[in-house]
Amino acid sequence: AFSHLDQDGNIRMVDVSQKDDTQRRAVAVGRIAMSPETLSAVYDGSLPKGDVLAAARIAGAMAAKKTSALIPMCHLLALHAVSVVLSRNEQEHCIDITASVSCTGKTGVEMEALTAVSVAALTIYDMCKAVDKNMEIGGIMLMEKSGGKSGQYFRSS
Amino acid sequence: AFSHLDQDGNIRMVDVSQKDDTQRRAVAVGRIAMSPETLSAVYDGSLPKGDVLAAARIAGAMAAKKTSALIPMCHLLALHAVSVVLSRNEQEHCIDITASVSCTGKTGVEMEALTAVSVAALTIYDMCKAVDKNMEIGGIMLMEKSGGKSGQYFRSS
Amino acid sequence: AFSHLDQDGNIRMVDVSQKDDTQRRAVAVGRIAMSPETLSAVYDGSLPKGDVLAAARIAGAMAAKKTSALIPMCHLLALHAVSVVLSRNEQEHCIDITASVSCTGKTGVEMEALTAVSVAALTIYDMCKAVDKNMEIGGIMLMEKSGGKSGQYFRSS
Amino acid sequence: AFSHLDQDGNIRMVDVSQKDDTQRRAVAVGRIAMSPETLSAVYDGSLPKGDVLAAARIAGAMAAKKTSALIPMCHLLALHAVSVVLSRNEQEHCIDITASVSCTGKTGVEMEALTAVSVAALTIYDMCKAVDKNMEIGGIMLMEKSGGKSGQYFRSS
Amino acid sequence: AFSHLDQDGNIRMVDVSQKDDTQRRAVAVGRIAMSPETLSAVYDGSLPKGDVLAAARIAGAMAAKKTSALIPMCHLLALHAVSVVLSRNEQEHCIDITASVSCTGKTGVEMEALTAVSVAALTIYDMCKAVDKNMEIGGIMLMEKSGGKSGQYFRSS
Amino acid sequence: AFSHLDQDGNIRMVDVSQKDDTQRRAVAVGRIAMSPETLSAVYDGSLPKGDVLAAARIAGAMAAKKTSALIPMCHLLALHAVSVVLSRNEQEHCIDITASVSCTGKTGVEMEALTAVSVAALTIYDMCKAVDKNMEIGGIMLMEKSGGKSGQYFRSS
Repeated sequence: AFSHLDQDGNIRMVDVSQKDDTQRRAVAVGRIAMSPETLSAVYDGSLPKGDVLAAARIAGAMAAKKTSALIPMCHLLALHAVSVVLSRNEQEHCIDITASVSCTGKTGVEMEALTAVSVAALTIYDMCKAVDKNMEIGGIMLMEKSGGKSGQYFRSS
Repeated sequence: AFSHLDQDGNIRMVDVSQKDDTQRRAVAVGRIAMSPETLSAVYDGSLPKGDVLAAARIAGAMAAKKTSALIPMCHLLALHAVSVVLSRNEQEHCIDITASVSCTGKTGVEMEALTAVSVAALTIYDMCKAVDKNMEIGGIMLMEKSGGKSGQYFRSS
Repeated sequence: AFSHLDQDGNIRMVDVSQKDDTQRRAVAVGRIAMSPETLSAVYDGSLPKGDVLAAARIAGAMAAKKTSALIPMCHLLALHAVSVVLSRNEQEHCIDITASVSCTGKTGVEMEALTAVSVAALTIYDMCKAVDKNMEIGGIMLMEKSGGKSGQYFRSS
Repeated sequence: AFSHLDQDGNIRMVDVSQKDDTQRRAVAVGRIAMSPETLSAVYDGSLPKGDVLAAARIAGAMAAKKTSALIPMCHLLALHAVSVVLSRNEQEHCIDITASVSCTGKTGVEMEALTAVSVAALTIYDMCKAVDKNMEIGGIMLMEKSGGKSGQYFRSS
Repeated sequence: AFSHLDQDGNIRMVDVSQKDDTQRRAVAVGRIAMSPETLSAVYDGSLPKGDVLAAARIAGAMAAKKTSALIPMCHLLALHAVSVVLSRNEQEHCIDITASVSCTGKTGVEMEALTAVSVAALTIYDMCKAVDKNMEIGGIMLMEKSGGKSGQYFRSS
Repeated sequence: AFSHLDQDGNIRMVDVSQKDDTQRRAVAVGRIAMSPETLSAVYDGSLPKGDVLAAARIAGAMAAKKTSALIPMCHLLALHAVSVVLSRNEQEHCIDITASVSCTGKTGVEMEALTAVSVAALTIYDMCKAVDKNMEIGGIMLMEKSGGKSGQYFRSS
């Protein structure tokens, strides 16, 4: 069941030699909740906010490229596209994060998408922690995945 | 308010030259929820499970050391201690993750603790994703922080 | 004369054990020249340009932190502050780049400042290369340096 | 126009899924100017100089392999060949640097060639800075590029 | 003869453009010798030993993925499988290490296998050095290699 | 006994907060054995050999700086000096490698010295593997270590 363990339970990077190179895509989401004041400071402040949100998008995309160095048994993939979209969620006092990743390869890109979301959230935490230490990162999950033998996956709500 | 932005709103790594080197410590938590079957497979399976949980602990600790390379404006710190503790949470079908980090330095280690938790969770996701794609990572937050000018912080429940 | 070579001409990382930990600072500059149209597209376009310039500032600051991994015999330093400032130079059709770096340590931070300038320039090249392949990066030099036994240095014009 | 920005101006790693894998090649140049005495010390000194120039060649080639980790939106490419050639330019008191990079892929290798030149120059600066702080790095530009939809590019003088 | 040197003896990353993409595999071995007491403490101790041996397997596999960043002229390869197997060698008081690596590519994966063995051994040293500083790492060699123009190689004993 | 394991056998980065910052130094050795013909080709060939041996010295020193990223529970240290010395051993058909590392810190630098030796040896293997696949890396051990509570260590022969 656990593909990263051999028959003796020893960890290994699973052999994907026999898998086909197919077009892969994954979308993951997550969010960082904060006080209404912090959220307002990010979006409504007098300062140009380009850099705060840009830092999160950039850090998320760069982290996607580093996924195989962070997750021990993750295969290296040459990603074809990465985008990290942030949107203000006024009702729930949070910033919603969506990362989409695609490539052609023998393994899926769900770890890359989940990593991009996580690091984008951590970057927002870092940018805002001087004013709000109570922020909470959550809701990190895979929304969809396509390509490969297992076919399409859509998260049921 | 946003210490990583200068007066024109441009991002920068904030100057900590004038801060004292003090003993710093931070504790962060998080969790990864999964189906009861997946949780049981991790903990009750016939395979030796050392490697699954060890991979998460090791990946979390290694990620703590890489924090300044992941989070754009984060200062490099020579960490003195990192531990990542995982515990089975039967009632809520999740693995609880706690990371503790300490060092002596001019900035706090909360980003290192939060990063360790996040990457430990992502590693568990990677190890178990062949059997469960619906896992959800959440509840990532700072529980306590000590050292530095701002003194002690404990998250109020 | 070449401190990175031993008496037999073999490369080594020079021993700085006997040097004092002092407050170090360095400022480096550089620029990327482009067509007036490209420069105008960066600054006057209809798109919000936060991300283009933010990417260069962020990449420059992150590269400063990676200097010891890029330059073979460079010592690792825990930087206290990094800032990368970009300014439009209408007359000479270029973007001027200034990087300031400081730390307390046994070696200077001029390589970190020069690396930040170089990678910020490369990032601008990457962002604009679809519209202009003739851009030229130049004028990368150390403007000032303080701290350490050799005292202050100011580039004479 | 700026392919790294989406329609809202948000940075992203541009999607290259639909591009063909073609043989790519790029050549970039640059130079580091120094005093005649420094140039002479590098090339005419009594010490074996293998290591000084080798360090620059090696650092440049290793940096080419790290390009996608340095430049935020750059795609990872498995490079097929990298060479960094250094030549003494007596007349203009500089070391001329030429980097050639090739691979088969969906994106060009101009950023890899430009990065190799930049880091080779920075390494020479680091090796010689104890004797000359006034060195200047410049003339970094793309000379030629082939492969891909846009066809061949040669810089016009 | 030395493929990493050009005709002038300058180092370069050898051009593999004309090589075929073939299925590659390499197996390397090595071992770390220690006192019988240390060996017994690793395998027979009262503590759960999962983490000690898991750390070595994980570090070895992660190092295999970093080979091209460690070995200057090594090509980046997207590995398809990595496994690191450790076995107690009671007679010779050592832990035997075997790493197997495979991928499809234009160059062999012997450096990846040798690097995995080396870093697994270094990790065991690190884990045990508090009780035994006399450990010795040795016997690191390539056992077999397949794929590519040169065909199969088996080490003759 | 195993300082990297907590009382439950879980891996952690051991807490060094209470250790003193002292001057640390470590010397490690190792060697790579090869055929007499290969050894002669490295040292007696008609090509300038600066780059072959320089590559090994440089790769070893750069790897010393990356030790904490390779060895899971190793602390980051800002190294003060690294040197890698290679010498031809005609009698035993090998290249002897000695790495010396020093820093001021709370933990020793033996892992850095051992890592430098290992990666220098791997680099020589890579440079020479086109002519000799039977090379063997061995004899990697700590020769001396000073600084810290445990005092001086010299390997007894």
